[in-house]
Amino acid sequence: MSKTIDMEVLASLCKRRGFIFQSSELYGGINGFWDYGPLGCELKRNVKDAWWKTMVRAREDVVGLEASIIMHPAIWKASGHADGFADPMVDCKECRKRFRADQLCEEQGLALIKNGSAFALPADAACPACGSKNLTEPRSFNLMFKTFVGPVEDESNLAWLRPETAQAIFAQFNNILATARQKVPFGVAQMGKSFRNEINPRNYTFRSREFEQMELEYFIRPDEAVKLICGRVATLADNPDLAGEPQADWGWEVWHRYWVEQRLAWYRAIGLPAADLNQHWQTGDELAHYARACVDIEYAFPFGVQELEGIAARSDFDLSQHQKHSGKQLDVFDEALKQAVDRLDADAKDHCTQRIVAAWTGRGKSGEEARAFAVKLYEGKYVPHVIEPSAGTDRLALALLCNAYDEETITDEKGKTDQRTVMRFHPAIAPIKLGVFPLVKNKPPLYAKAREIFAKLQRRWPCFWDESGAIGRRYRRMDEAGTPWCVTVDFQTLDDGTMTLRDRDSMKQVRLGISELIEKMDAEIG
Amino acid sequence: MSKTIDMEVLASLCKRRGFIFQSSELYGGINGFWDYGPLGCELKRNVKDAWWKTMVRAREDVVGLEASIIMHPAIWKASGHADGFADPMVDCKECRKRFRADQLCEEQGLALIKNGSAFALPADAACPACGSKNLTEPRSFNLMFKTFVGPVEDESNLAWLRPETAQAIFAQFNNILATARQKVPFGVAQMGKSFRNEINPRNYTFRSREFEQMELEYFIRPDEAVKLICGRVATLADNPDLAGEPQADWGWEVWHRYWVEQRLAWYRAIGLPAADLNQHWQTGDELAHYARACVDIEYAFPFGVQELEGIAARSDFDLSQHQKHSGKQLDVFDEALKQAVDRLDADAKDHCTQRIVAAWTGRGKSGEEARAFAVKLYEGKYVPHVIEPSAGTDRLALALLCNAYDEETITDEKGKTDQRTVMRFHPAIAPIKLGVFPLVKNKPPLYAKAREIFAKLQRRWPCFWDESGAIGRRYRRMDEAGTPWCVTVDFQTLDDGTMTLRDRDSMKQVRLGISELIEKMDAEIG
Repeated sequence: MSKTIDMEVLASLCKRRGFIFQSSELYGGINGFWDYGPLGCELKRNVKDAWWKTMVRAREDVVGLEASIIMHPAIWKASGHADGFADPMVDCKECRKRFRADQLCEEQGLALIKNGSAFALPADAACPACGSKNLTEPRSFNLMFKTFVGPVEDESNLAWLRPETAQAIFAQFNNILATARQKVPFGVAQMGKSFRNEINPRNYTFRSREFEQMELEYFIRPDEAVKLICGRVATLADNPDLAGEPQADWGWEVWHRYWVEQRLAWYRAIGLPAADLNQHWQTGDELAHYARACVDIEYAFPFGVQELEGIAARSDFDLSQHQKHSGKQLDVFDEALKQAVDRLDADAKDHCTQRIVAAWTGRGKSGEEARAFAVKLYEGKYVPHVIEPSAGTDRLALALLCNAYDEETITDEKGKTDQRTVMRFHPAIAPIKLGVFPLVKNKPPLYAKAREIFAKLQRRWPCFWDESGAIGRRYRRMDEAGTPWCVTVDFQTLDDGTMTLRDRDSMKQVRLGISELIEKMDAEIG
Repeated sequence: MSKTIDMEVLASLCKRRGFIFQSSELYGGINGFWDYGPLGCELKRNVKDAWWKTMVRAREDVVGLEASIIMHPAIWKASGHADGFADPMVDCKECRKRFRADQLCEEQGLALIKNGSAFALPADAACPACGSKNLTEPRSFNLMFKTFVGPVEDESNLAWLRPETAQAIFAQFNNILATARQKVPFGVAQMGKSFRNEINPRNYTFRSREFEQMELEYFIRPDEAVKLICGRVATLADNPDLAGEPQADWGWEVWHRYWVEQRLAWYRAIGLPAADLNQHWQTGDELAHYARACVDIEYAFPFGVQELEGIAARSDFDLSQHQKHSGKQLDVFDEALKQAVDRLDADAKDHCTQRIVAAWTGRGKSGEEARAFAVKLYEGKYVPHVIEPSAGTDRLALALLCNAYDEETITDEKGKTDQRTVMRFHPAIAPIKLGVFPLVKNKPPLYAKAREIFAKLQRRWPCFWDESGAIGRRYRRMDEAGTPWCVTVDFQTLDDGTMTLRDRDSMKQVRLGISELIEKMDAEIG
């Protein structure tokens, strides 16, 4: 149920009210880059603060990280991005133009030929610019932006701008484990800019070349360790209480679903309606080879249902890759596991090893790997598995803008109709929480009272002072900014201290005193 | 008065407690890049939040911007960075190694020869690696990291990672002016990552290749407009009240000093002692040609007195450059100015123009430029001047770490001495505000009470739960994390609700109830 709003109308409001500007507009713009204006950057700050508060500060089992954007290139070798994070490109040998092979084929009603990880063009494919069929074979174009660190531009100084924030968490896993006084299960959260040299940025800010991510890597015990410690592994069939405290016997499947539920609850809490949030469970071919499960949380954008966040159960793939490439151990010692295995005799261990080998070989892994894993287990050690809820901040901001946008025909007491545009942001993420207006500006005591009230409220929340124009026009301006409430200080305020509070959505007005106002705002902003 | 602390000892604590890690340490590191661990990223968040709160949210005359890191390359042409933001490099023609010309000369006791903006090597200069004197002439090495946007790596797709956040504010000036309902004087603030391909990153995180800035561009009227509107221009000689409300008659000199005072007050408010803050007023050659004044706020680091923030009066240089390069008008219409000039007759205007021409030509500008400026003024228009307080977040975080670090010998009641390391952060920026400890963990009612208190306090502030080890050891751990207070929940808590509050700095303990505790923390965190 996509909202039927026109993206151009939304983009126009976003520019007019200072939510989003095209980057470098003064110089004709730069494709795939966007700036957030005064209201937009407050909206994004509120989104990021809400995420950090929920994911890090309110939890005892998650800590933060802020890593650099440029990292050692070996990290992207280990993660697979250096070799695999690519789109197929072709060059026209006649006119020298360059195209994305898959898009070129699609536009010409042809199918790109896939040979394993390589691609080939069908014979009929032609250059969209000059019509020539003299095209190169497709070769991969890596989506990472590259640069050189230091004064020499050679291969040894090549570095990339990170295409995701997640890898830094794996690369710093040992340092965090050594310093944060956390034990598995625990998580590491990071927010920050990432860069992807998209061939075709589109859908306004949805797919851009520079964007911000909010990622959590939540490390859990492998199910085999849970089994040894608890004697059982809880699955979804056990109907676990996902809203309560996590339990020691949860296996990866329950942890994965727990994070899906946590994330959905958060999206609802910042104002996205449950009905517009979709879960897409990846199956078969869609799943990365190492992933146990992945669900995309999608939002019904005006341009289609699109991903806001992916929540993947990535097994021990990432830490194992970095262990292999760095030559350093990234396993943990688990005291509870050691105590559990120390209670087993040789027969019980053999039996357990056999079970593990059977399960692993059934999943296509080698018996040797399975046995090595079991040997580590009996030392109380394992490479943690990970659940990764990975969200895009900019696309979430866009979803919140789409969701907030509303046009409404209103009728005044004289029966006159008027049109208003209103951004119905949840109070928690609204850039401005309260407009404060003096009824008139030429009555010094009233004006001074209004300033006094403004100063008091602005210490708590972002407020906006507006003294110009009719009150109705001031309301309209705050409606477009998405400000949930406005108070007007009038002559009665001088007598009894009460003000008129006007609600953005219902447009209802009530009179209340400042302490009632503070209480109401505290409760609704959360 | 630099503190005599050993940077290696500080760096070791920063690593051990999770403040700062070397980026990509798992792969041997990458020179000039740093990561902030669990405590470090909270420290930096607190610093940035404090800056934003003071500079944007608490002010009605400043709005925010969050622009992209990669922008149109024309921006760096206009700003002068594409051509002038460079260090001189030489290559050895024998061994093919590359060096910074100024460093090479300095190491060999020679002076680099300066011919205008170009450099030449003295005849005796030799390659530090192979000793050959067969060196190239110095040529400039641009400090901007470069990359390519889109699939083709040619000049037309070249882009740079921004070396400062400031330019985006100038490039978006018109959009912000059109949307933010601000009039000159007003400011635009931005925080974010910047990148400089330093040849020689050094002093721990002080000079790194990727860093974060907090910049304000505060736009003011040119003094000539102030004179026309107010009939006078206040200077420092008028002894203006810089701590009070800004006044309409302030000239650039007063505005510049106002921001110096504002910024110094902020540094003191987050805990840097006034005695360790130095003002360096740039003179003559140090000043950029367009700058009226620039003061560096410096901190006495253990490795020397170094810049935390530069506060420059940059005249109308930046907006004028972008006006010239973009071909678009970046002037503002000032209603008060228009009203003032409309009251002037032709003679008065002539007289005013003559004064402006005399003053400008005295400063080396052309009479033609001065007259064009005057003509604009009489239309009520001008290109705003700007005061730029530009701070480095990472170097500030480092200053706060240096300032907080302390080693102390303490003597217990039995006369036994012990050593403690304590990070004396101001409560406003401390990563953790409060440690909460149950006296013992094996008494369920006491434990439950402590958990209840922890849950209540953690909703307000970042708190840390610690139940393991002797209370004294738990205190020491919180001392190293810089946590200003710890509360211990004991058997008396079950009777009367009071807890033991221990102060990090004095190590004094008092008993108080939860509402007194909340009141105290509210007051001291601010």
